[in-house]
Amino acid sequence: MTRSLLAVNTLSLRISEQSYYLLDQTLLPNKEVWTEIKNVSQMVEAIKSLRIRGAPLIGVSSVLYIAFESLRNSNLEYLRQVALELRQARPTAVNLMNNIDDLLAHFNSVESLVTRAIKIFHEDQKSCQQMGVLGSEFIKNGDSIITHCNTGSLATAGDGTALSVIKHAHRQGKKIHVYVDETRPLWQGARLTSWELEKEEIPHTLITDSMAAFLMKQGLIQCAFVGCDRVAVNGDFANKIGTYSLAVNCLYHQIPFYVVGPLTTWDKQCETGDDIPVEQRTPLEVSQIKMDNAHITIAPKSSNIYNPSFDITPAKLVSAWINENEIIKNNRG
Amino acid sequence: MTRSLLAVNTLSLRISEQSYYLLDQTLLPNKEVWTEIKNVSQMVEAIKSLRIRGAPLIGVSSVLYIAFESLRNSNLEYLRQVALELRQARPTAVNLMNNIDDLLAHFNSVESLVTRAIKIFHEDQKSCQQMGVLGSEFIKNGDSIITHCNTGSLATAGDGTALSVIKHAHRQGKKIHVYVDETRPLWQGARLTSWELEKEEIPHTLITDSMAAFLMKQGLIQCAFVGCDRVAVNGDFANKIGTYSLAVNCLYHQIPFYVVGPLTTWDKQCETGDDIPVEQRTPLEVSQIKMDNAHITIAPKSSNIYNPSFDITPAKLVSAWINENEIIKNNRG
Repeated sequence: MTRSLLAVNTLSLRISEQSYYLLDQTLLPNKEVWTEIKNVSQMVEAIKSLRIRGAPLIGVSSVLYIAFESLRNSNLEYLRQVALELRQARPTAVNLMNNIDDLLAHFNSVESLVTRAIKIFHEDQKSCQQMGVLGSEFIKNGDSIITHCNTGSLATAGDGTALSVIKHAHRQGKKIHVYVDETRPLWQGARLTSWELEKEEIPHTLITDSMAAFLMKQGLIQCAFVGCDRVAVNGDFANKIGTYSLAVNCLYHQIPFYVVGPLTTWDKQCETGDDIPVEQRTPLEVSQIKMDNAHITIAPKSSNIYNPSFDITPAKLVSAWINENEIIKNNRG
Repeated sequence: MTRSLLAVNTLSLRISEQSYYLLDQTLLPNKEVWTEIKNVSQMVEAIKSLRIRGAPLIGVSSVLYIAFESLRNSNLEYLRQVALELRQARPTAVNLMNNIDDLLAHFNSVESLVTRAIKIFHEDQKSCQQMGVLGSEFIKNGDSIITHCNTGSLATAGDGTALSVIKHAHRQGKKIHVYVDETRPLWQGARLTSWELEKEEIPHTLITDSMAAFLMKQGLIQCAFVGCDRVAVNGDFANKIGTYSLAVNCLYHQIPFYVVGPLTTWDKQCETGDDIPVEQRTPLEVSQIKMDNAHITIAPKSSNIYNPSFDITPAKLVSAWINENEIIKNNRG
């Protein structure tokens, strides 16, 4: 077996056989800084601190990191330890676990695992493309679309999941407008999705999460597209906190609500959403705004704070799930 | 007629015949700074920039300012101009217009208007007390309550509107917990309500606006109490952006949703919510976080932003309206 060449160049990743760089998403949109990753601790830190994020991208970047590491140390037992350490970096998104388990099944040789990692990378790019094509049938010329968090090239190795659908509709020449939820507490909508839509020259308007319902009431939104971090067998799914509120509002206003994610996001071990673990993050993400060396405290220091990073949306609120192979429609209500 | 003595001392206002100070709410919770107001331009600026805010408090502080000014310049025509300038400082809350029109009907003499301003102040304190007593019947021992924005002593001259109800339930010895929406974009929940609940030693937890629905789904919330900036004849009402989303989620989760505000908040000129003007504020409130001389930009500079300061919630989503005289129940749905 001949090993494939490790060479990756996306909006989020720049990897060669000599170096591994990722775009530090915590500094966007104000600074575009590429951070070099030199060991597994730095990679785990990058995932935990959200320098790199997005369910598919965490999975793909992790297997690519193991491939990169294998060119420095070919001891398979050592690489297995690296894989297991990465596998635990974040608990909610299942792509990470699925991609690493896939790679672990190809731990016969360095050649085999590098080739497999590159295949996982290419499959993610291809699945983004396919989800974009499939989902874009739900977007009509003139539609305004709401989206939450970031689900584009900063969340995947390709065009994205929900954002890939939006990009495809735009490339098809449909006149669309995107309403971007800012996505508190970490502003993935404001910081990342707005930045990505700017790059793609797709017309968009940023709003606070709490404004979405009022836009719907005014008839300004025709459909909603969101990504997912884990989907249970019954269709319940975990996604960035605020997704559930958006889904309830879509139902009330009779606006279709679509969930887009590759099959690696589906978890056969979870029967329902009740089986999905929800990551709780530090209260400081809510009470302190930090960026560019500035630091603003917006709550009394003694206040109690709840900060679930994700919420669970039940299948009954979903109009359809879109993966790389098919559209699964649902009778919502 | 003998004029009453102008002497006011509340959580938000410190007024004597010699000086007029207000607590600068833009600097809370990190700094408690009392700003002296020396002329009407400063008062208008304080209202527009939200140094002083809350529908009832804007109205009461404005008539008290006119009374204060009348002790410096007793020319009634001049004072009428001051009143008209203040009347236009913010467009959505109607208490301001109602209170000033009430005062203008007492422009016979300085004595008459000062006495009337003080009466309006005392009436607001009394109405807060009465709303608190009336509304607290809806709160049971052990309840967790969600609230939005700030509706307490930083929004009125007394205990508040929605927050007065919560304070009364607490004073009655009921064991309660308050979930505080942070209230983007200007954090009135995080900055002001948390601070006020700390002072009152009422147990509370701060959340982002987008988390409310997920708490409801988990059965963690028993009722919602919000204030109002203007109520139409049919019961539709304007309140801080995000109120409508909360009301929709309360309906979906069958959680009672109560609206608390004095009769000065009701506007007989508005038949329905469609007649209420919604103030649009600068996009910079959304894209830039400013406090304590720090300044963080969370969105690309070129992004388009929508920033309505209020939304309109239709009467059909309200379980009951509570004013100082009565509870008006509604069959929601």
